[in-house]
Amino acid sequence: MYSPALPQHIGILLFTDFEALDAFGPLNCLNALSRSFQLRISIITHSGPSGKPAHTWPTTPGPQNSHFTQGVVPTHSFANSPEDLDLLLVPGGYGVWEETEEMQAAKDFIRNVYPNLKYMCTICTGSALVAMTGLLDNRKATSNKRRFKAIVEKFPRVNWVGAARWVVDGNIYTASGVTAGIDMTLAFIQDVYGKEHADEIADRLEYERVLDSRLDVFAAKNGVV
Amino acid sequence: MYSPALPQHIGILLFTDFEALDAFGPLNCLNALSRSFQLRISIITHSGPSGKPAHTWPTTPGPQNSHFTQGVVPTHSFANSPEDLDLLLVPGGYGVWEETEEMQAAKDFIRNVYPNLKYMCTICTGSALVAMTGLLDNRKATSNKRRFKAIVEKFPRVNWVGAARWVVDGNIYTASGVTAGIDMTLAFIQDVYGKEHADEIADRLEYERVLDSRLDVFAAKNGVV
Repeated sequence: MYSPALPQHIGILLFTDFEALDAFGPLNCLNALSRSFQLRISIITHSGPSGKPAHTWPTTPGPQNSHFTQGVVPTHSFANSPEDLDLLLVPGGYGVWEETEEMQAAKDFIRNVYPNLKYMCTICTGSALVAMTGLLDNRKATSNKRRFKAIVEKFPRVNWVGAARWVVDGNIYTASGVTAGIDMTLAFIQDVYGKEHADEIADRLEYERVLDSRLDVFAAKNGVV
Repeated sequence: MYSPALPQHIGILLFTDFEALDAFGPLNCLNALSRSFQLRISIITHSGPSGKPAHTWPTTPGPQNSHFTQGVVPTHSFANSPEDLDLLLVPGGYGVWEETEEMQAAKDFIRNVYPNLKYMCTICTGSALVAMTGLLDNRKATSNKRRFKAIVEKFPRVNWVGAARWVVDGNIYTASGVTAGIDMTLAFIQDVYGKEHADEIADRLEYERVLDSRLDVFAAKNGVV
């Protein structure tokens, strides 16, 4: 099905030390949706397809001297990103806290691209990255529940919602930690493309959806109210 | 923590049209585990690092003329795979049904590598791919619940278990569809590395684990008993 009103071109912003499932939970839902609606994906990084792949956390060996990261191939750079993006996905991960040229460029990219988007969806600490741009000021949003108190203190101009699996404010969807991104994406698909598609994809993934965004057992578990 | 008895070197077999979340649900659990235990990852494909990335389903434009696939960078080819793999992950996806040189090589690789593994874990129709090798004959196993009846008919020598989020038989773990791979991986981590690590990772992922492998709402939903 093709409708010019529906988001067709979906971009995902990736960066060093993104959280794998923040990206691939939502992407798998959209991979399935692309069989029912005309969709295109662009995978957008600082250095783009001529640079390094985007590597999942953890890119550093860490305390156990592990080597356990996966590389995803970018299709575009921030500088040459498509001009017709409808939806931008912003995953989280430890990389969001890095004060590198890459992450500065990521924030500039979000700021520049947002005015032309139909929607933006963040997962986990992806909302902290967007909060750094100021785009969440005076908006309702949620984030990872383990980092929640620190995030609330760091970004006091955002109307953070504690007990929420995901939050919608205008055209920005924000999800709680990691797997909450699957529920948020299914909610987004339900809102925009229709409930039958969201339910069909959840069944395909053998995933028991959280249907009420206020049901968030991890808020209480982490002392967030 | 490093113990020679624990699996240290983890391989994942990827192929054209693998299901993204089959791979990245388990991988994200292990990405987190690698901060507590010394782990290495090898991403193994037919053509290896000198060939194409491994692309997620759907690699073809399909009925809606969509272009919606993501590429993952391999580190090894089947021919030059590491000889000290402890655990092999086998995701599913439409690619498993393809009768290509790539998938024939994948089956040969599984058959060759299995005798030297400590464990093998399959997700979704990954168990069908392994069933094609004969390695599941006379073993208990499960698979994707939508394709379950067809899979049971196709591989009658496997002791398929219908109502199961995942199944363990000897050193082979098999999961039901897509997100069941997360529950299976957490169960594997609990069995092998300790319950506290599985619980910690589930909380980190804000994921409500299925703790009883026999709880499988998608078996009944798909008429599988």
